Amino acid sequence: MLGLMQDRPLLISSLIEHAAQYHPRREIVARTVEGGTHRTNYAEVERRARRVANALASLAVAFSDRVGTLAWNTHRHLELYFGVSGTGAILHTVNPRLFPEQIEYIINHAEDKVLFFDITFAALVQQLAPKLKSVRHFVAMTDRAHMPAIDLPNLLCYEDLIAAQSEDYAWPEFDERSASSLCYTSGTTGNPKGVLYSHRSTVLHSLMECAPDTFGVNSAMCLLLAVPMFHANAWGMPYATAMVGAKLVMPGPHLDGQSLYELMRDEGVTFSQAVPTVWLMLFQYLDQHPEIDIKDVGVKTIGVGGAATPRSMIERLERDFGAEYVQGWGMTETSPIGVIGRLLPKHAALSGEEQTSVKLKAGRAVWGVGLKIVGEDGKALPHDGVAYGHLHVRGPWIAGSYFKGEGGPVLDEDGWFPTGDIATIDPDGYVQLVDRAKDVIKSGGEWISSIDLENTAVGHPAVQEAAIIAAHHPKWQERPLLLAVKRPGQNITREELLSYLSQRVAKWWVPDDVVFVEQLPHTATGKLLKSKLREQFRDYRLPTA
Amino acid sequence: MLGLMQDRPLLISSLIEHAAQYHPRREIVARTVEGGTHRTNYAEVERRARRVANALASLAVAFSDRVGTLAWNTHRHLELYFGVSGTGAILHTVNPRLFPEQIEYIINHAEDKVLFFDITFAALVQQLAPKLKSVRHFVAMTDRAHMPAIDLPNLLCYEDLIAAQSEDYAWPEFDERSASSLCYTSGTTGNPKGVLYSHRSTVLHSLMECAPDTFGVNSAMCLLLAVPMFHANAWGMPYATAMVGAKLVMPGPHLDGQSLYELMRDEGVTFSQAVPTVWLMLFQYLDQHPEIDIKDVGVKTIGVGGAATPRSMIERLERDFGAEYVQGWGMTETSPIGVIGRLLPKHAALSGEEQTSVKLKAGRAVWGVGLKIVGEDGKALPHDGVAYGHLHVRGPWIAGSYFKGEGGPVLDEDGWFPTGDIATIDPDGYVQLVDRAKDVIKSGGEWISSIDLENTAVGHPAVQEAAIIAAHHPKWQERPLLLAVKRPGQNITREELLSYLSQRVAKWWVPDDVVFVEQLPHTATGKLLKSKLREQFRDYRLPTA
Ligand SMILES: Nc1ncnc2c1ncn2[C@@H]1O[C@H](COP(=O)(O)OP(=O)(O)OP(=O)(O)O)[C@@H](O)[C@H]1O
Ligand SMILES: Nc1ncnc2c1ncn2[C@@H]1O[C@H](COP(=O)(O)OP(=O)(O)OP(=O)(O)O)[C@@H](O)[C@H]1O
Ligand SMILES: [Mg+2]
Ligand SMILES: [Mg+2]
Repeated sequence: MLGLMQDRPLLISSLIEHAAQYHPRREIVARTVEGGTHRTNYAEVERRARRVANALASLAVAFSDRVGTLAWNTHRHLELYFGVSGTGAILHTVNPRLFPEQIEYIINHAEDKVLFFDITFAALVQQLAPKLKSVRHFVAMTDRAHMPAIDLPNLLCYEDLIAAQSEDYAWPEFDERSASSLCYTSGTTGNPKGVLYSHRSTVLHSLMECAPDTFGVNSAMCLLLAVPMFHANAWGMPYATAMVGAKLVMPGPHLDGQSLYELMRDEGVTFSQAVPTVWLMLFQYLDQHPEIDIKDVGVKTIGVGGAATPRSMIERLERDFGAEYVQGWGMTETSPIGVIGRLLPKHAALSGEEQTSVKLKAGRAVWGVGLKIVGEDGKALPHDGVAYGHLHVRGPWIAGSYFKGEGGPVLDEDGWFPTGDIATIDPDGYVQLVDRAKDVIKSGGEWISSIDLENTAVGHPAVQEAAIIAAHHPKWQERPLLLAVKRPGQNITREELLSYLSQRVAKWWVPDDVVFVEQLPHTATGKLLKSKLREQFRDYRLPTA
Repeated sequence: MLGLMQDRPLLISSLIEHAAQYHPRREIVARTVEGGTHRTNYAEVERRARRVANALASLAVAFSDRVGTLAWNTHRHLELYFGVSGTGAILHTVNPRLFPEQIEYIINHAEDKVLFFDITFAALVQQLAPKLKSVRHFVAMTDRAHMPAIDLPNLLCYEDLIAAQSEDYAWPEFDERSASSLCYTSGTTGNPKGVLYSHRSTVLHSLMECAPDTFGVNSAMCLLLAVPMFHANAWGMPYATAMVGAKLVMPGPHLDGQSLYELMRDEGVTFSQAVPTVWLMLFQYLDQHPEIDIKDVGVKTIGVGGAATPRSMIERLERDFGAEYVQGWGMTETSPIGVIGRLLPKHAALSGEEQTSVKLKAGRAVWGVGLKIVGEDGKALPHDGVAYGHLHVRGPWIAGSYFKGEGGPVLDEDGWFPTGDIATIDPDGYVQLVDRAKDVIKSGGEWISSIDLENTAVGHPAVQEAAIIAAHHPKWQERPLLLAVKRPGQNITREELLSYLSQRVAKWWVPDDVVFVEQLPHTATGKLLKSKLREQFRDYRLPTA
């Protein structure tokens, strides 16, 4: 017997409609690619999203057609978020930091019909255009005065395009399981694969982002959106903020420390999230400006995810910013909420340092995300905080397969998604990431966490960045090799660094060698590109070998 | 094209499973019907719910069969919440305060197969049993030592029943739209009608109850459940608290002021909700105990709904309790979240008194609940805070029809649910209730709000309770008649009361007469039973007539 409640689909259009009706004048602030700051609000974003919807119809974009974007976090990108998905077309946010060949691959693979791009990427688009077979229209996200001087026959101007449209548009209703947006993984190995979100998954995920046990998104909040909108939908925040009418501050192309600081200071930002590298850039700016007391800006909560956070970062965010630090673990494939690192009531009794140790874990299970760790044999391991294995997850906002079936059937026998991460889970549900399965060092049957070693190495004041990769060893199969970048003006020897490490990690974890390098390669989302390092040091001969 | 996220149904069992796995030892405290306090936790509740599930199978309860309860807020009732719905059977919470004839009607109408009851209601059950045609088993929710001495051939003992069962049970997966629970409206007019909730509506509603813009339910919270579990699923809180693992404090049959106070003080309660009458009882207890400083208990948030809150109650909750007051409007038919009375950021600039005026409104729209007001012609009226009309609502946790089609097709042409309430909506989405459509006084084409007049009348220190009903008038069709109960030991005359009112309301709103009565009739949920008053005063002749 079915219940007799109303059968209302969970649609992305309902988010912006709600914001426009009940928070019409709530501000949305964006630093633009043309220069300067643009101020708008939810009512206007929704009105212009309706114009976008009509424009898409005029460009013959049909239900489920893909519409690509190569764009920063601006109000126009936000209008596309709602305007494209609201019609039932699929918003495909392309990461402009990928290699041009990857961008070409992704757009062709997605078969984008229209490509919206920020003028920053005009040259790139001109270069790629001949190879983008499915793209019928290129739309420069700017006004007539700032149109780029590129030569494309099918080039349109965003402001002209939508100005020519009527505001009359009623958001259609359709199956909530319909695809809403498409995002390719950042490509730490192989060709990127597409994650195809649905309206249902997006709305459920937004609801969870409002829960205080995750981020407590609410109408009084002012969010600085420092996660790019091409990175897993800016971790879902543009949807969650519309759901409650929170103020949204968008840095445009300016993710440097000074810009973020100024936006925080000027706009009353209370909450922001980003990958660790973004916070490091802000720290560097603050180091150069000791006259700034960052506490004055009044940021209440800083979320960090996408990569491990070093202890020193947590301490600085809490001490200097006076902010609450919240770690999250997630993936493009998890929308991204996987686990969230908040303390439980019982942790109130711990010392500050002990609390930080809890916060160093990736985070805890929230409702909606099932977690298990399995051994090499696929059998579930205990949640005792000690046993480690492959992390598999399940839930209504977790991917079930990739676009066009790439990578084959990815779920395990019970229907869980294998994350490729190795983790422990403690009895409270806190997940501690050991490593990516492909990065872990397999030394004589035992595993060594490259993440742990890297975090320990950067604890040394002379080390700016560190990477651990496996080097071949005749006896142990693999042994850790440390690649380190020295902090400018600092010096340190191989022996000093190894002795520093040997005082802090198990003896058999200590790397067999250290190589000092000028810089380390990164992915488009700012993570260490270990596949490249492994290639580069494939034939490295350890002194112990 | 459908998205490629996992297809996971939203099921009530997932809530208690999550709580049991990730908040196993989080406390659930219940005052019992046998006397004393029982302490349990989510792990044990889930374990026992699995025994309940097996017990239901042993009693041949099938998917979608109704299982009735006549019970207070206790741990056993909580076990049934999850144990019954978790199997796919339908939990039917019967309001034991209804008249016996209504209870008989409801249980027969629902065709309950099994009836679980607290020993408090043993005599009632014995009396009704012969008339309850569908009930095959009666289960006294107690242990062997406390079994009531009633003579029923098919009487079972709860603790014996579940002790005989295995703990082995896997919560089944099924369509999230399946019916989960059934609750009849409280019956201010006619026969009660059944609202049939679904797993989907319940889980979505729980997610919304976690949003800070509603109640911000979270793992650190300690909730005193002062709304009966037979009143719209205790406003959904048992589900929301399980979703996040909040501590739950259940008063059992003890809703008196002293019991609530003691539970608040002893258990570290931070949040509680109830109808205004419950808070009045607590106020009366505190009046008798001036030595108590209620601020010491540290309650942070008090929710009030189900009936209008007088200004004095808000002031006292904020001043004496140091608590944040949050009004809500809802109905059994709305799960209950309709609108929630929280301030917006812009209200921070208002004076305390102006803020209270905002809080006197029923509350604001939240995502998921569509609101409109329509005139007698069914046309939508503006949200300008002035125009008033019939409030219609829409959303995934709002009823679409009643059980067995009672009352016919209830939705309006556009698929919205007519609430029977008259309201204004202001541009921020704040709903102000004018009256129930059936209670409003229609005086010569204009409407007078009985709620407003009643709230004004109880502002007089000598008035304990007041009810306004329509009395027939030859010229104006209807004019207000005030029925008032004097506060013990206080005196006031008809003229004094009318003069008090005439200084506070529009001249043409002043009642045409006052009748002092010993007491006023109430519904089973503690609301004024105006249908009874109208009957009683049907032939009342106004002095002005
Ligand atoms: N809090 C965290 N601590 C450590 N690592 C994290 C954390 N959060 C995320 N990660 C890492 O980031 C991964 C998810 O990142 P993302 O989806 O952006 O793409 P990627 O995995 O880096 O790229 P690709 O999937 O193309 O290889 C996780 O699988 C995990 O390895
Ligand atoms: N905050 C509030 N202020 C004023 N009235 C309220 C408020 N919240 C709820 N109500 C009233 O309570 C009603 C819902 O109550 P409920 O579902 O418990 O049953 P009932 O309407 O009292 O009984 P029945 O439907 O059987 O007549 C609303 O329709 C409204 O009239
Ligand atoms: Mg990945
Ligand atoms: Mg009603």
